[in-house]
Amino acid sequence: MAKRKEQLKLGAFLLFTGHHVAAWRHPKAQPDSEFQDFVKLAKLAEAAKFDAIFFADGVGVRLDDPDAASRKAHNGTYPFEPITLLSALAAVTENIGLIATASTSFSDPYNLARQFASLDRLSGGRAGWNLVTSSDAGAALNFGHDAHLLHGDRYERAQEFADVVLGLWDSWEDDAFPRDRESGRYFDRDKLHVLNHRGKHFKVRGPLNIPRSPQGHPVVVQAGASEAGKELAARTAEAIFAAQITLDEAVAYYADVKGRLAKYGRSPDDLKILPGVHPVIGRTESEAREKFEELQALIQPEVGLNLLANLSGGVDLSQYPLDGPLPELPETNGGKSRQALLIELARRENLTIRQLYLRIAGARGHWQLVGTPEQIADQLEERFENYGADGFNLMSPINPGGLTDFIELVVPELRRRGLFRSEYEGKTLRENLGLKRPTNRFAATEAVAAAE
Amino acid sequence: MAKRKEQLKLGAFLLFTGHHVAAWRHPKAQPDSEFQDFVKLAKLAEAAKFDAIFFADGVGVRLDDPDAASRKAHNGTYPFEPITLLSALAAVTENIGLIATASTSFSDPYNLARQFASLDRLSGGRAGWNLVTSSDAGAALNFGHDAHLLHGDRYERAQEFADVVLGLWDSWEDDAFPRDRESGRYFDRDKLHVLNHRGKHFKVRGPLNIPRSPQGHPVVVQAGASEAGKELAARTAEAIFAAQITLDEAVAYYADVKGRLAKYGRSPDDLKILPGVHPVIGRTESEAREKFEELQALIQPEVGLNLLANLSGGVDLSQYPLDGPLPELPETNGGKSRQALLIELARRENLTIRQLYLRIAGARGHWQLVGTPEQIADQLEERFENYGADGFNLMSPINPGGLTDFIELVVPELRRRGLFRSEYEGKTLRENLGLKRPTNRFAATEAVAAAE
Repeated sequence: MAKRKEQLKLGAFLLFTGHHVAAWRHPKAQPDSEFQDFVKLAKLAEAAKFDAIFFADGVGVRLDDPDAASRKAHNGTYPFEPITLLSALAAVTENIGLIATASTSFSDPYNLARQFASLDRLSGGRAGWNLVTSSDAGAALNFGHDAHLLHGDRYERAQEFADVVLGLWDSWEDDAFPRDRESGRYFDRDKLHVLNHRGKHFKVRGPLNIPRSPQGHPVVVQAGASEAGKELAARTAEAIFAAQITLDEAVAYYADVKGRLAKYGRSPDDLKILPGVHPVIGRTESEAREKFEELQALIQPEVGLNLLANLSGGVDLSQYPLDGPLPELPETNGGKSRQALLIELARRENLTIRQLYLRIAGARGHWQLVGTPEQIADQLEERFENYGADGFNLMSPINPGGLTDFIELVVPELRRRGLFRSEYEGKTLRENLGLKRPTNRFAATEAVAAAE
Repeated sequence: MAKRKEQLKLGAFLLFTGHHVAAWRHPKAQPDSEFQDFVKLAKLAEAAKFDAIFFADGVGVRLDDPDAASRKAHNGTYPFEPITLLSALAAVTENIGLIATASTSFSDPYNLARQFASLDRLSGGRAGWNLVTSSDAGAALNFGHDAHLLHGDRYERAQEFADVVLGLWDSWEDDAFPRDRESGRYFDRDKLHVLNHRGKHFKVRGPLNIPRSPQGHPVVVQAGASEAGKELAARTAEAIFAAQITLDEAVAYYADVKGRLAKYGRSPDDLKILPGVHPVIGRTESEAREKFEELQALIQPEVGLNLLANLSGGVDLSQYPLDGPLPELPETNGGKSRQALLIELARRENLTIRQLYLRIAGARGHWQLVGTPEQIADQLEERFENYGADGFNLMSPINPGGLTDFIELVVPELRRRGLFRSEYEGKTLRENLGLKRPTNRFAATEAVAAAE
């Protein structure tokens, strides 16, 4: 197969002390709870020319199992809220993209559109919005709900939410603010556009009260892998943080999603697919294996079972023998796609409950690699060259060590192979990801009208 | 009269190119629309040992009079949203307080509590929340409403909103996160408190998913001057940005609000009253007068009339002769206190409509001073020593000139008189404002119970 012309993209998915579920107990992990810890990680990723740093989010502490929650860092609490954290990091970085997760289920499109537009302007065009829906019923209780929306309704609301946000981001044309001291015109009324959205879930007049950003608008990111999630991504997303584990799954997912773009008038290049990868890197295979086992030994059984409950949509497995097989799981409203991945994994590898939680505890359901820099690079290259990915979202097992290992050992190997940049291509996140700058929908319409 | 023991407090209310309505047309005003413009202003204020920088906010472009809106900077658009802007500024400052306005009318208490807590933690305990209600019917249209809430309802919602936010900020005790690697305990369940709020406007379970901040929680700021606003402030606020113009009004307001604190179990020192002041400073009186007239000459009549409409709660005065008297104004739902101040001013000074807009255009209804550094310092000292203020919120006519004039000319004069600090007293905004650190309500209850 011919080598792909373009290079691969890299995101750094920064999470607390690390992505491994027991990372926080590791003696070399940083606490990750101070702002300066995040400054250090962001600057490391920027020096290595990563496209973006990325933060997950949630809006509730997981109290379904308080004992398990109290034994892990990934319990629903966060040291900082992502939009404020990325705004602060924008001030101390210059090139790296800044992608924050924010849910469409419990926020308001006007406020969200405005904060992301502000982050985008603050950072000179480096913002991205990871659009998610929330499946956590506990979170719903923090927002006046008694129970949570069904899966389909969440996505319907999400699509309308995205339509409103994208519409608001076109409220002003790029040159709408002449600020002409002589004539006394601060803005040009002809370049102001009122959205007047009236839909099923939202009624929003507009305009947004913030000018358009240097990259047009923030990059829209998505993660959904269900049917509704893939359709939303094909219509709206410009990058996807995917979660397929095998090469075959990744290639099928890639073809499936890219194949859906045409019906929305989009080209395959308009959407980058970036699977998560959780690499444990050693200079030798045995060093990598030792590093991995050292982390695995820190996993508490209460945490392992709770992890399975979360990934399976709330199913309590504590009544089943730890060393017996995974029982049939009932259907739930939450996280359909993750539940399917979990069952598929257990069946394929014939795992007991204990083996299953140990198997996925590290990457928490994502793609896990344990090996030398060359082995890791081989795996990434294979997935990239076979169109299973346009790049990867690095989920370091522990911070900062997992990130520095990847930067010092794997990035140089990727560069030797011509797979990754040595310098940023542009100033904005779009320019670096190879995404086109969106034209303002209203300006475009007028240009067409004028040409007719 | 004995001199007050404490020194006065200073906030820098940063607004675009400046507070004067025509500031943006002044040849020496900076555009103020780039992030680095705000970095410069924040660092200037911090070097001068100001207690805080402060940002106003709104959630809609004022489209009632699009022509007037397009002729001014204060049209409801903002270069940045305040919470994101202050988060970014937190990363490049060390001591100065960071106060953002956010409305209780169109946001959600869980999201707002979390973002301010995050800003507070990012900045090492320097955040403040200026709690406002929104009277702008145009803004309501951006949030699914057909019309806006009546004045009383807005304040009822605001009080419940504040109760929820303050409750959420006590979700975790100060030492709730031992992160003990040996025992495997990340957080202490006994130091986690679930709010379970069920009120008329909100139903919020909690807990907030972010640890408590170094200063306990952000400083709560208020600005309301109506009866409902004063009561909300007395119950909840720790600082007030007041807007009285004469010394008598200021002293009466100060005594009124401080007198309301006891019934909520609070001491007069628990709330700082900081009126806005808009000083035009010259080395001589005639230089100050010239500077002022130069700005006034830049005011467009369309803007002056629109300013009066905004301050009077939407009344259109364009049908009345510009050089005739202010007519009787009908009662409105919006901004009662500002309308009363406006009428009082016109009657007291017997002003025509044109004279009225020219009279208030600079400070837009706030306290305006034109004079030498000594004259300005005299006025501030008089108001402070007579208990009309605990300090001031500086509304510079233009930026950066108005701020640098104040710092270079007035601040040294205040220091010579022993009225203002030369070094920060503490690390947090609370420590500098002289406010006590709030105990966690749940922890306090337990301590009392244990002592009984």
